[in-house]
Amino acid sequence: MLPIVQLVHRPGILDLGWGHPDPTALPVAALRRATDATLTRYGADALAYGAERGPGPLIEWICARLAHIDARHPDPAEVLITSGASQALDLLCTLMTAPGDTVLVESPTYHLAVRILRDHPLHLVAVPSDADGIDVEALTTILKQLAKRGRRARMLYFVPTYHNPTGVCLSLERRRALATIAAEHGFVLIEDDVYRELSYDAPAPPSVWSIAPPGTVVRIASFSKSLAPGLRLGYLTADASLTRRLIGSGVLDSGGGLNPFTALTVAEVCAAGDFEATVTRLRAMYRERRDALAQSLRMYLPPGCRFTVPGGGFFQWVELPEGVDAATLLPRAEQTGVSYLPGSRFYLDAARSNTLRLSFSLYPPHQLTEAARRLGEALAAIR
Amino acid sequence: MLPIVQLVHRPGILDLGWGHPDPTALPVAALRRATDATLTRYGADALAYGAERGPGPLIEWICARLAHIDARHPDPAEVLITSGASQALDLLCTLMTAPGDTVLVESPTYHLAVRILRDHPLHLVAVPSDADGIDVEALTTILKQLAKRGRRARMLYFVPTYHNPTGVCLSLERRRALATIAAEHGFVLIEDDVYRELSYDAPAPPSVWSIAPPGTVVRIASFSKSLAPGLRLGYLTADASLTRRLIGSGVLDSGGGLNPFTALTVAEVCAAGDFEATVTRLRAMYRERRDALAQSLRMYLPPGCRFTVPGGGFFQWVELPEGVDAATLLPRAEQTGVSYLPGSRFYLDAARSNTLRLSFSLYPPHQLTEAARRLGEALAAIR
Repeated sequence: MLPIVQLVHRPGILDLGWGHPDPTALPVAALRRATDATLTRYGADALAYGAERGPGPLIEWICARLAHIDARHPDPAEVLITSGASQALDLLCTLMTAPGDTVLVESPTYHLAVRILRDHPLHLVAVPSDADGIDVEALTTILKQLAKRGRRARMLYFVPTYHNPTGVCLSLERRRALATIAAEHGFVLIEDDVYRELSYDAPAPPSVWSIAPPGTVVRIASFSKSLAPGLRLGYLTADASLTRRLIGSGVLDSGGGLNPFTALTVAEVCAAGDFEATVTRLRAMYRERRDALAQSLRMYLPPGCRFTVPGGGFFQWVELPEGVDAATLLPRAEQTGVSYLPGSRFYLDAARSNTLRLSFSLYPPHQLTEAARRLGEALAAIR
Repeated sequence: MLPIVQLVHRPGILDLGWGHPDPTALPVAALRRATDATLTRYGADALAYGAERGPGPLIEWICARLAHIDARHPDPAEVLITSGASQALDLLCTLMTAPGDTVLVESPTYHLAVRILRDHPLHLVAVPSDADGIDVEALTTILKQLAKRGRRARMLYFVPTYHNPTGVCLSLERRRALATIAAEHGFVLIEDDVYRELSYDAPAPPSVWSIAPPGTVVRIASFSKSLAPGLRLGYLTADASLTRRLIGSGVLDSGGGLNPFTALTVAEVCAAGDFEATVTRLRAMYRERRDALAQSLRMYLPPGCRFTVPGGGFFQWVELPEGVDAATLLPRAEQTGVSYLPGSRFYLDAARSNTLRLSFSLYPPHQLTEAARRLGEALAAIR
């Protein structure tokens, strides 16, 4: 039997390596209503080559939504509907870079975004980060070093809000500083903003896009976390001149937009109030899971382990005691019935090997507690 | 009001420039049944991160379908589900080429595919074609010239079956010769095979993929013509080692396949018999339109115009008398209420300016007849 889903269950293992939503959280009934409503309301228009930018109803909803959950809302000409965040990043690499261009990447960072960047002929340079996110002073030093070698940065990829894997939110001061530096040096900030809707304590901070000078930031967003990843639907906000450049590309022109039927369907989900209802439900569910995991880690992890509870997103980053290698620990952890991703996966270089990423999105609280207990047991066994 | 569809109606003009399906031909009811069935049968699995290759049920259906409509059917490991043909071509450029690689392109060819190729840092070289399709002798000469300059071809993009824009089917002899040449010279044939299901007189010829040595051909296919373009769903068949390379890319891994919800939905369309019913209906409808346009062109075009009636697809290619420039004629044609794409759009170089492409997909027979009459009127006016 060929598989349908990406997730692979390993019997006996609570696998906190997967950054996937709990299947029970996916809005099946809302999607059923929305597909039906879409085909009733739009008929054949829902199945035709779509407007290159994406369908008007979804663009208008996004503009209105961002007025609520960000510090600035875009004009429709600043929005482009994409087939998810991954495809948006790939498209930006294809259309905004030339071979050999230098692209800065916050480190640690989302490991699969690095894979997308590496599929293009780019020169990647790591920018270190600390407990407050990307290190702006280190960035300045790197830019100077690049300039000495006659190089300029073309883009910087980063996840400032509920970071994957660290859970950190970049401070407002650093957001402002980054925007200023990017504008001065003439590179584009690629702001991966896919966790904005999943805030558990307070509203998400303003996006860098919302506070930066025009043309400085492309913000990539997604319905994968707030609705369902299988829809492969996302959007970006950027300067109107850039969205025009993207719309003028061969892929968007020849295909008639990137995912028009699904985009109209999601517009119906939103119009019916099911988006708001879904994220409200997800926030409550994932908040409870985040808290259960944090509480259990406090209970079961041995002294010397450190972690900061994230304000949103899917991920709990854990620092093990110095000298403990999370990759070496992994087989032992899996023997006790728990798995995770070693932190080294998320670094471009100079990996801190005593780190790991736990995702609290896939399991209910009692299983997260058991996972923490097993992790503690594995750690105790190697001491 | 922001638009929903790509098509723009210009009042008073029968616009045979659009290679779009007639909206009345789009299977709205079948899609409604299929989305409902998908969410009932698969529940949350339909909305989760999908298997990277695409969902098993659709892959299995494609293997069985190609056993009926091609000379060889693939193994599941030779299939990859994509977000339409455009995105597949873009992905192949990203993952299979290096900057500066030489890519051969049949000329004339599908103009928007050229736009996708040009969005990558490739060196495009035109290969001429004649009334039987791509000119294999000319290709051999070009390969020799490249070799003299120390260059090799990496890929060749072509549309051998119901060609866009010419409607030509490449002869079986040339298909075999092309496969041999590609294998000898070590370049990959990118076979754009999106019109295979739309055959009006006889079954489509065997794909080059089906008769070529393993690893020589990537065949790109699509549900845009056979079901609906707004689904953005296609697939490719290629050597298992190549599909593994694609599956291992950042975009496919991070996104969980390219369009899983839509792919499962189309699997339901197919399982319900609605794919077969749709293509049977489309073949009858477009055959009638092709015949109506051809008959009307015979009636209304002045002497010196030449055309060959295509055996499938969407397009009627017309050669005007030598010295008549289709681009110069266009404003006059639009004044009489008909439009088309000048043939020069489809050439990489050395355009034959006395050619034009008419699409018979969008209008019913009586409007195609009127369009031909207006075209004849515009031609008469300039003589």
